[in-house]
Amino acid sequence: MIHLNNMSLDIRVVLVEPLYQGNVGSVARAMKNFGFSELILVNPCELEVEARAMSSHAWDILQGATIVPTLKDAIGGASIVIGTTGIAGVRFDRHLRVPAYSPREIKAHLSGAEGTVAVLFGREDHGFSREELRMCDMIMTIPTSDTYPVMNMSHAVAVVLYELSGIEAGKNRLAEASDISLFYDHLFQLLDDIGYPVHKKEKTRLMLKRIFGRSVLLEREVQTLRGVVRRIQRNLDRDKRH
Amino acid sequence: MIHLNNMSLDIRVVLVEPLYQGNVGSVARAMKNFGFSELILVNPCELEVEARAMSSHAWDILQGATIVPTLKDAIGGASIVIGTTGIAGVRFDRHLRVPAYSPREIKAHLSGAEGTVAVLFGREDHGFSREELRMCDMIMTIPTSDTYPVMNMSHAVAVVLYELSGIEAGKNRLAEASDISLFYDHLFQLLDDIGYPVHKKEKTRLMLKRIFGRSVLLEREVQTLRGVVRRIQRNLDRDKRH
Repeated sequence: MIHLNNMSLDIRVVLVEPLYQGNVGSVARAMKNFGFSELILVNPCELEVEARAMSSHAWDILQGATIVPTLKDAIGGASIVIGTTGIAGVRFDRHLRVPAYSPREIKAHLSGAEGTVAVLFGREDHGFSREELRMCDMIMTIPTSDTYPVMNMSHAVAVVLYELSGIEAGKNRLAEASDISLFYDHLFQLLDDIGYPVHKKEKTRLMLKRIFGRSVLLEREVQTLRGVVRRIQRNLDRDKRH
Repeated sequence: MIHLNNMSLDIRVVLVEPLYQGNVGSVARAMKNFGFSELILVNPCELEVEARAMSSHAWDILQGATIVPTLKDAIGGASIVIGTTGIAGVRFDRHLRVPAYSPREIKAHLSGAEGTVAVLFGREDHGFSREELRMCDMIMTIPTSDTYPVMNMSHAVAVVLYELSGIEAGKNRLAEASDISLFYDHLFQLLDDIGYPVHKKEKTRLMLKRIFGRSVLLEREVQTLRGVVRRIQRNLDRDKRH
């Protein structure tokens, strides 16, 4: 948590179904090394002696971790959800171009913001499911060698937190997750109302979420966007009545 | 190794008396992740099953590592020797102010250079001895939380190599270690010749090495410096003869 007067940017580390308890312990240590404390574990492996040993003096982080059954539970309340993958984002979805940002680019996106950001790390063997990736607003990839790009998960966490630990929070309040969700509801309702082709709808919805997701929407921006959609709706309704 | 036409900046990773084989394996993996291959181990622990397991697909890096008995053997031929410590450099030597650079600052220092740089990581428990620190031209410290600054060694390597992997080599040839050594011989001879106080000599020698060390001397600069010292010597000799 970075506090600057009353402003803070909270980084939440989310591990999705980690397989090795040593890695989870190492992640806790890296978090404490860089001053982060909020850890959420989605359906993790057993956490016993080895996890404690690898956490070293960060056992408190591990003990304070929240365990949840699904990724959806882990990202509640976060304004931005960032998925970290070892492969460039473009590859995992043929239908949508999903740009992958480097940790440094993510840092630039978040500078001056205030709110909660969830940073996700996938399973050591299979990363994220397609469904989980769809929940991400942005994809982050650490630039690695083509010869052997697959990093140890706790190394990836260390590198990402090293980069994100220097962010200066600002007074640009990130939109609340609930407001963003209401905006999407509005927007998708609008798609329905204008008779958007059913076979394209799902893809377009996802694309719209990606576009707004990676733009890191501020509170006031979401209000403006919702105002725009409301106004369009009102005009459509009026036209229909005539 | 970063090649740009014929230019290259070779980063050599040196682990000084690593205690845990799992860490050594993890370091090899991080090296391969970021495209580095030259690993030197100073009097390491046994490297067996766990080292191999943690190296994952970087077993070749581990197998290709050079094992040497002392740090002096590990830094031969390197133009610059950088020691990585978890504590700010200023603390470990009361007599000399030794500034510690962040990985990003080290990267800036090395940009555009060509030659061999040795990056040292100390023992997991006690880091470097004072004698070993004296062999370093620069000290690098990863900015961490005051609450718990001690990183896992392989995490520190991952963060440092993440930062250093992006360096663009240039045509500024770093001075050869042997030329730098000859320059110091000259310079220290000069101190003797001018009757420099004996009780200050050791400290001043070390300070001079630190100053020139962290300036990352180029080949042509060392030649110029040696020329300056030679010219001073010649003038001193002439004055003496008169």
